[in-house]
Amino acid sequence: MSGAADWGADHAAIAATTAKLLAAVNASDVAGVLAVWADEGVLMPPHHPSVQGLEPLRTYFDNLFSRTTFTFRFTSSSIELVGDTAFESVTYIVSTRPTDGRTAREDRGKGLHVYRRQGDGSWQLIHDIWNSDQPAVAPPAPRDQRLGSA
Amino acid sequence: MSGAADWGADHAAIAATTAKLLAAVNASDVAGVLAVWADEGVLMPPHHPSVQGLEPLRTYFDNLFSRTTFTFRFTSSSIELVGDTAFESVTYIVSTRPTDGRTAREDRGKGLHVYRRQGDGSWQLIHDIWNSDQPAVAPPAPRDQRLGSA
Repeated sequence: MSGAADWGADHAAIAATTAKLLAAVNASDVAGVLAVWADEGVLMPPHHPSVQGLEPLRTYFDNLFSRTTFTFRFTSSSIELVGDTAFESVTYIVSTRPTDGRTAREDRGKGLHVYRRQGDGSWQLIHDIWNSDQPAVAPPAPRDQRLGSA
Repeated sequence: MSGAADWGADHAAIAATTAKLLAAVNASDVAGVLAVWADEGVLMPPHHPSVQGLEPLRTYFDNLFSRTTFTFRFTSSSIELVGDTAFESVTYIVSTRPTDGRTAREDRGKGLHVYRRQGDGSWQLIHDIWNSDQPAVAPPAPRDQRLGSA
């Protein structure tokens, strides 16, 4: 069993790992993002199927950062430790800037990080899932509805 | 420490809890949904802020099911037990039918359930988050882009 001192050290190590992830995403630093992920980790991004494993993650983030840069800011974090696993729920604000110069957009949402303690004592991501708080954009209505019955 | 027999029983109990949740959502049965949630649970729905606690959850599902009915089907489930906590990653297909008679839409996505073992041995949801695999609908372009520079 671990005591309060261990809990504090684990909590600090997990918060530091999240800070590394945030800095890497905000710098479009693919190697920095991958350093936080466990080999078998599963990224679960909105509007894209899950991405599992370091090489698929590398391809995903290479493509993503070539099209878009991000400034994420976590507005809350709650970390729960259960043995060698930890759950962190976060809320965030993100500014998303297309690299083609189109206007940046701001969004806010929430997410869940699942971390696993590694053999060397570090913590790595095994799941990362999030979604937006903003209402969905409605899909275009069928043509006959848009134009009326005329 | 728990042995393999306990693991099997816990796994079955968690899978049964997920099955109850699925049946309740598909029947627009708010009481059935709430029966699966822990008092302090946090629902993290796409395109809506987090909803925490049984009374806010009741209001959320009352409103949701008055506007929309769902047929969810889980297409995969992976359950991991960590002491008195468990997390389940799922993939799903859902058919969403507005109650005003507009056309049903099909979607697919993935999610993460976090369960907590309760004092009576049952398992209850403490986090539920999911998102769509489908590409986002692009927001309307600013008026000058839609109409050109004329």
